[in-house]
Amino acid sequence: MLTTRPLRSHKKMAEQVRDAVSDYIREHGLKAGDRIPTEAELCAAFGVSRPSVREALRLLEQERLVVTEHGRGRFVTAAAALNIARPITVFESISQMLAALGYAPQTRVLSARTLLAATDPQAAAALGLQPEAEIFVLERLREAGGQVLVYSIDVVPVALMGGAPEAAALTGSVNALLDKAGHKLVMSSANVAAVFLPSGVLTGPASAEPWLLVSETCLSETGTPVLYARDYHRGSLISFNFSRQ
Amino acid sequence: MLTTRPLRSHKKMAEQVRDAVSDYIREHGLKAGDRIPTEAELCAAFGVSRPSVREALRLLEQERLVVTEHGRGRFVTAAAALNIARPITVFESISQMLAALGYAPQTRVLSARTLLAATDPQAAAALGLQPEAEIFVLERLREAGGQVLVYSIDVVPVALMGGAPEAAALTGSVNALLDKAGHKLVMSSANVAAVFLPSGVLTGPASAEPWLLVSETCLSETGTPVLYARDYHRGSLISFNFSRQ
Repeated sequence: MLTTRPLRSHKKMAEQVRDAVSDYIREHGLKAGDRIPTEAELCAAFGVSRPSVREALRLLEQERLVVTEHGRGRFVTAAAALNIARPITVFESISQMLAALGYAPQTRVLSARTLLAATDPQAAAALGLQPEAEIFVLERLREAGGQVLVYSIDVVPVALMGGAPEAAALTGSVNALLDKAGHKLVMSSANVAAVFLPSGVLTGPASAEPWLLVSETCLSETGTPVLYARDYHRGSLISFNFSRQ
Repeated sequence: MLTTRPLRSHKKMAEQVRDAVSDYIREHGLKAGDRIPTEAELCAAFGVSRPSVREALRLLEQERLVVTEHGRGRFVTAAAALNIARPITVFESISQMLAALGYAPQTRVLSARTLLAATDPQAAAALGLQPEAEIFVLERLREAGGQVLVYSIDVVPVALMGGAPEAAALTGSVNALLDKAGHKLVMSSANVAAVFLPSGVLTGPASAEPWLLVSETCLSETGTPVLYARDYHRGSLISFNFSRQ
């Protein structure tokens, strides 16, 4: 049932074939109902073994990108044609997200403070901290062309960072700071809501607009919550895509 | 390589085992790093064959709920502990979503009209309609306890429905209407944004609040776009969860 190749690298090969077939569907503009190449053709095209191709096709079926009709062949599904740009379910930094939207934003630090967890009960709950634990709270704006795009509040347990970060690091990535301290962020549990900004953050018309608030508890590889982020995205400029199945 | 059981039902069995293991993790409060039962224990517990259990474990690994450490066993990942309630990525009707939030809403029809696609360019583009095609446009409110929860505009190509629906059907599910006409909705491509309501829909304080707009192009099993829905969720009462990986 198994090939002589170790399972892990076999799976990785299958995942590469899966991605390649998925790219093929998109690049060739295949539509729902279009036939995909046969197993033999895929083996030849990618120079990989039959088991890898079968596993790739199983992955594609599972993700509902491909459907097998017995005796007829394999076909592209409607899901494959959806082709979601920048899905909200992909874990990426604000900088990555804004760059993908075509912005080259500046970061402005509004405040950087070490506080007691008791001062931010939401963050304390998300990070599993006692009221007397210390948190590092970084409040920033991302701006481009004179417009505020994102207002963010990042909260990190001070104990995880080995002290508060240096001033020079505050305009950079909090993910990178945590990574350096040995806590690589791999996923998050998030919530999206429509809100106004907290009062006093901004003045002018932007302060009266609806903002898209994404609140996230970010976990490291070991499953430890290491960052609680509240990112307010300007509603008139930023929205998110996703697919529902 | 295949069991004598047909692939389809074998897959369904594996999916059932996958769900059962996922429930087990949640119900027993397992945390990231906790060991899950062995293949043999799972076979015995669920009374299913080894291939079904292996397939289920492969699904769980792929969804990053379980990780295999060679020679040590299988362990719960951080993702399994996230336990997202009502994820935005699950395709469900507004009624299902509001019921899950504990609301028993009333539906009020604001308007039901047959128009030319040209009057709604966004819907026409999403549904792939020519300007002169006819669309059925249904505008409704979901209310509970005297509060508006959702304002929705559903747009369906008239040609797909075999004519405009009867008045009695207008407070019910548009999904069910399409289902009856032979178009079962299976997935959607969606976008979420923070907005104000279109002017004139409501008066009073709710009209000045931020609303969470989910715009969805819903596809049938054949990949045909059959419904373009714009659902405005009251920001102060409704938000959505998801995980990012």
